[in-house]
Amino acid sequence: VAARAGVALSSVSRVLSGHADVSAKMRIRVEEAAHTLGYEPDLLAQSMRSGATRTIGFIITDIANPMFALVARSCEQELRRAGYSMILMNSDGEAETEAENFAVMRRRHVDGIIASLISEKSASVNASINSLRAPLVLLDREIAGMKMGAVNGDHRKGVHDAVEELLARGHRKIAFITGGLDVFITRDRLKGFRDAFAEVMVPVPEESVALGGFDEEFSSRETHRLFSKKTRPTALLTGGVGATAGALRALKKLEIEPGKDIAFVAIDEWPMFDVFASQFSSVFRDPHVIGRESARIMLEVLSGAEPRTAVVETKFISRASSAGGV
Amino acid sequence: VAARAGVALSSVSRVLSGHADVSAKMRIRVEEAAHTLGYEPDLLAQSMRSGATRTIGFIITDIANPMFALVARSCEQELRRAGYSMILMNSDGEAETEAENFAVMRRRHVDGIIASLISEKSASVNASINSLRAPLVLLDREIAGMKMGAVNGDHRKGVHDAVEELLARGHRKIAFITGGLDVFITRDRLKGFRDAFAEVMVPVPEESVALGGFDEEFSSRETHRLFSKKTRPTALLTGGVGATAGALRALKKLEIEPGKDIAFVAIDEWPMFDVFASQFSSVFRDPHVIGRESARIMLEVLSGAEPRTAVVETKFISRASSAGGV
Repeated sequence: VAARAGVALSSVSRVLSGHADVSAKMRIRVEEAAHTLGYEPDLLAQSMRSGATRTIGFIITDIANPMFALVARSCEQELRRAGYSMILMNSDGEAETEAENFAVMRRRHVDGIIASLISEKSASVNASINSLRAPLVLLDREIAGMKMGAVNGDHRKGVHDAVEELLARGHRKIAFITGGLDVFITRDRLKGFRDAFAEVMVPVPEESVALGGFDEEFSSRETHRLFSKKTRPTALLTGGVGATAGALRALKKLEIEPGKDIAFVAIDEWPMFDVFASQFSSVFRDPHVIGRESARIMLEVLSGAEPRTAVVETKFISRASSAGGV
Repeated sequence: VAARAGVALSSVSRVLSGHADVSAKMRIRVEEAAHTLGYEPDLLAQSMRSGATRTIGFIITDIANPMFALVARSCEQELRRAGYSMILMNSDGEAETEAENFAVMRRRHVDGIIASLISEKSASVNASINSLRAPLVLLDREIAGMKMGAVNGDHRKGVHDAVEELLARGHRKIAFITGGLDVFITRDRLKGFRDAFAEVMVPVPEESVALGGFDEEFSSRETHRLFSKKTRPTALLTGGVGATAGALRALKKLEIEPGKDIAFVAIDEWPMFDVFASQFSSVFRDPHVIGRESARIMLEVLSGAEPRTAVVETKFISRASSAGGV
């Protein structure tokens, strides 16, 4: 094929593995030569010979979360450019499914796994990770004592800045609804929440903090519980998108208008935020950066580098909704 | 392993391939026996022997479209329950990338491909399809003379019912912005649009119909063009989510309020539609059904059935926004 196309052997290999770093002209030349000669590289046979499948498993707690769809997209794009394919498995928020997904990935000989774990504490997942023979990159999770790559948001910063503004506006009873403490992302957000109170020497309203799930149901129930009380909170932070959706549904039923009756900050944005939620203050992180960095760390490790941790910045964006409730 | 677990050989095979139709008790028993014996099936070696990789390629034009993320999720769930894994590739709306994605899937020996093509007319994609040695299921595309499965929305119905209501409310100059005629989904929507006008013997306002792209840019530009005119349309339909987003951004700039200054119908809903767009009339189709049906047709074909076409219903849901502009 190289002789026919009049190019180097390495160029043929790059084109046929789907590598992105190839000019369109080169690609057409090689593909045409391969086609004329009836040559089709067999990636399955190559995998048996080399031991590398050039596939990366992406295990996600819930792709239906619009932010994760954007993370998966950027990750796949970056992997594809390097000639890797992504096998996507959804854990649907179920620990058993997650463990089974890890087992399937292992049996498929993926070259690496990028995962957003449901919990850092699940015994079955920890057993799966320990028996992995492939590098791992975790999204917003910390498991001590294991060598792995990580992409962690600087969640503390964004939540801190949001709460700082709410405190400055006179709020004291600030409600905070998000996932459980068994994941790094919640612990880091909580640190930001507590730090902001400590800085102005105001006690944290512990009874208004509900940490237990990222799903709509949990958030909806907790919003209802906290805001049906006589002395209800005057401000609310929710994270991420599922929790925000649940809270907004509950507030609607309670006839409490966020941005007017109470101050409101959404942690994580979603598609068309600027069109439909342009009045909402938010703590923003860029899903494109998360996906891209997770792929890059994986590719580096596969090239022999030590796994590293990338930190993704978060940014509090103050809009109309955080000015309510005073 | 079967002897150790005290179960049938077929049960072991079902558990270790990740088949869903297995009780939790059976799964634990088999996994434990396999673990004790140190047995781990090698899916790669099995693929070389059987010729089946138990992987399905999912080639999507853009997973960032929140509706497609939901389609991918249901498709992956259904495939996983049958012991298949999904390889996800995004074409980013580029015909060249799409053709390359098909080539990679072929080299990976996927057992089948589910795809949402950018265009039915692309020569390179048609060449790719012709050289496929695996069954194909298309989403909302029609390519004549080829034996393949399909999941097609009944787009005509939903658009027809929406336009029928707009005509009954007295609208005549109804604008319609969506993708190009090189895909079935646009032709079927246009049929609904034209049929509704024909039924009441009103001429179609051809100058207000803009068919050319599903992306925000196209829709935003066309909305701007149509609604800056002196005799602007009094109603607007946009499809799908990208086109709706582009139109809403343009209307905001033009200071035209949908639902008040003009009637507005969004074709396709998106996450949290009920929270943020509860006033918007829509043409709804269920992404869960689309994903599930595409997987089912693929699994049937892999079991030896003839490929079939599933029709997914669409439903016009009249809310406040279609009552504007009169």
